[in-house]
Amino acid sequence: MARGIGLEAPLSKMANSNAHGEESPYFAGWKAYNENPYDPKENPTGVIQMGLAENQVSFDLLENYLEEHPEAYNWGSGPSSFRENALFQDYHGLQTFRKAMASFMEKIRSGRAKFDPDRIVLTAGATATNELLTFILADPGDALLVPTPYYPGFDRDLRWRTGVSIIPIPCHSSNSFQLTLQSLETAFANAEALNLKVKALLITNPSNPLGISSPRSLLEDILNFINTKKIHLISDEIYSGSVFSSNDFVSVAEIVEDRIHINSKQVHIVYSLSKDLGLPGFRVGALYSYNDKVVKTARRMSSFSRVSSQTQKMLSFMLSDEEFTLKYIKTNRKRLKERHSRIVDELRNSGIDCLKGNAGLFCWVNLGEFLEQKSTEGELKLWKVIVDEVKLNISPGSSCHCSEAGWFRVCFANMSQETLEVALRRLREFAEKIRATKKIS
Amino acid sequence: MARGIGLEAPLSKMANSNAHGEESPYFAGWKAYNENPYDPKENPTGVIQMGLAENQVSFDLLENYLEEHPEAYNWGSGPSSFRENALFQDYHGLQTFRKAMASFMEKIRSGRAKFDPDRIVLTAGATATNELLTFILADPGDALLVPTPYYPGFDRDLRWRTGVSIIPIPCHSSNSFQLTLQSLETAFANAEALNLKVKALLITNPSNPLGISSPRSLLEDILNFINTKKIHLISDEIYSGSVFSSNDFVSVAEIVEDRIHINSKQVHIVYSLSKDLGLPGFRVGALYSYNDKVVKTARRMSSFSRVSSQTQKMLSFMLSDEEFTLKYIKTNRKRLKERHSRIVDELRNSGIDCLKGNAGLFCWVNLGEFLEQKSTEGELKLWKVIVDEVKLNISPGSSCHCSEAGWFRVCFANMSQETLEVALRRLREFAEKIRATKKIS
Repeated sequence: MARGIGLEAPLSKMANSNAHGEESPYFAGWKAYNENPYDPKENPTGVIQMGLAENQVSFDLLENYLEEHPEAYNWGSGPSSFRENALFQDYHGLQTFRKAMASFMEKIRSGRAKFDPDRIVLTAGATATNELLTFILADPGDALLVPTPYYPGFDRDLRWRTGVSIIPIPCHSSNSFQLTLQSLETAFANAEALNLKVKALLITNPSNPLGISSPRSLLEDILNFINTKKIHLISDEIYSGSVFSSNDFVSVAEIVEDRIHINSKQVHIVYSLSKDLGLPGFRVGALYSYNDKVVKTARRMSSFSRVSSQTQKMLSFMLSDEEFTLKYIKTNRKRLKERHSRIVDELRNSGIDCLKGNAGLFCWVNLGEFLEQKSTEGELKLWKVIVDEVKLNISPGSSCHCSEAGWFRVCFANMSQETLEVALRRLREFAEKIRATKKIS
Repeated sequence: MARGIGLEAPLSKMANSNAHGEESPYFAGWKAYNENPYDPKENPTGVIQMGLAENQVSFDLLENYLEEHPEAYNWGSGPSSFRENALFQDYHGLQTFRKAMASFMEKIRSGRAKFDPDRIVLTAGATATNELLTFILADPGDALLVPTPYYPGFDRDLRWRTGVSIIPIPCHSSNSFQLTLQSLETAFANAEALNLKVKALLITNPSNPLGISSPRSLLEDILNFINTKKIHLISDEIYSGSVFSSNDFVSVAEIVEDRIHINSKQVHIVYSLSKDLGLPGFRVGALYSYNDKVVKTARRMSSFSRVSSQTQKMLSFMLSDEEFTLKYIKTNRKRLKERHSRIVDELRNSGIDCLKGNAGLFCWVNLGEFLEQKSTEGELKLWKVIVDEVKLNISPGSSCHCSEAGWFRVCFANMSQETLEVALRRLREFAEKIRATKKIS
């Protein structure tokens, strides 16, 4: 067989493809930050990282808890607990941890939905959960519907290794970027016309990057839609505990439990401890599926992506403490809401508009007025100015496949209040400068 | 579009395929054990698990170390270390941990090979490393050459989600199951005749299930072979620290460093802490590649399979302690050797033959004389008798795709010395009973 003319053994098409999407401005901005990170004392003119959806506002609660409960991570009085834990190989995961996760997910929903620990499949982060679900629901060449703007990592998670494609469903500022049944129907029909097999719809509720949750009526429409079309629903609810008011969030789980005519086997929920609990380093993701076959297959696949038993043990202890988790959820919501109000108010004072959000670690900010041209190019030009000159790393909407130019995701929970104030001042001064220049010219 | 006649949204072909291989006797035996596990006091007639390649013989060293060094897993005096660690999101992994891993891998090779920490990609276990490498080296439909008998999990790891196939290279008892250049050439030629693109050869050195390491001359032949054929070499060295004498093990890394004519970009080493250190629950695997592009792509893919930063922190502390690691490696080798000698001697006393091994947590045992018929069926029949009546879960060679019936992998490091003696007695009594029956009939 001819081995090609290269001098080296070839790599796969996947290795040579750019489907991982990591060359996008979303990731480029992180680099700019890493090369010149802001520090109030050491580097006060450095870049402030507002491109990272990280939750640090409630970290003191976790720290205090661990300080008061070293038994959560100690290896016990005898050595045996280390041995058992280090050798733990069951890909179901620690039963106590799955129970604690189910209970935590119920508390986030104020008890309005029940979760069976045996339907929870643990993975090393929601990144792995989303990929694994795509492998299970779709064949290479098939497609998933995903409303835009969406989390840039989905390009990697849903497409790269699975060979599945994403069909974006454009949402618009005219109705606050909410998904509509009409746009769903249109996207589905277009896909069929192109002979693409749509296997699932993926929604993020609350939405990253929009910072809004889905109203109950929309979720009902969605469930009827997937029922009729016989496709699956992936409901990524990794920000469910970051909705500012618990009553503002409706999980698809609540509706599935209410409606007997809905085929729950087509519904799959993704969760994670990276956002609501602020533990991305510990790599804890979870799939909750109402479909036995999906649960079984996902468990097998979780062999590629298991959670350290050491981490399961510690978090199992922490999340089993009802008093602590209830207090944490309540305080975390309150603090996020305060942060959010502060940034929205200050932006408003600067004459900058935001989408009215009720959730998440970010605002969806309209900087359209500062674009030289209303296009992706114009947006990226503005983005470069903001990173290089204003020294703020925010994420351009185009990296989230937003259909309208000029929107940016601005994260507010990964820094101190003081740093946030510096960032807001920089943005205000920038807005004033540009407006002044415009007036003169 | 027609949605088929089913009432439900369909799952992927992958979800419906059996390529995961988890219905094999290898996994069925675990179930038999789980349903009736041996316990010296509580259940002395239960099944003894000898199908699990787990290393417990040196656990006391780890336990003592952690007892003496609680700072390895404590969160420090201030709370800040927890915060930094929990938030750690860099998919390169903790630099201190990669350094400690590189140094540990060098110590296992008695300093005969050097490892650059920047070429180490961390993953949640070698299961993920092997899959990720397959995704990078081969396209769906391509093939990997793998000498038999091989670890049953490879059917899942290399094939299931990648769509790549395995071409077995049969090895034989006539030359102690060593791979030969001749059999390599034949397997490659056969694959070409079938129009299969061979992208890589995967060897396990030392071999699971054989418990033998590859001689230097064979590794040299292999490197020349992959150079000529322009294919990659995956050298799975997860048992490199479990060779009974350090001089008995030659890593492919040593030869790559010696030979400038070899294209090192085609060579990739897999490592893990699950076997040599006995920490499967903590999910630490590692890829070491001499190919920049493979390193870069693997790092991106490791997003799906990252190691908990909590676990990286603890093991980083432990493995950075040179005195401890040197002592651990030495003691572990010695204890495994003693265990191995004991089982081989006792089997010999019972008139049962083993492959002459020098590594690993298992023996490759010839029970051919007890087969009613020399076939896979005969082997599985014997296996069922051994599980159900002798109450030992050992792994039939057919689950490792062995080309000769009657061989079994018998693990010896996942139990106490006392339990091992019970297992050996059961086996001896079984052998005596069968031989007596044969004499009578």
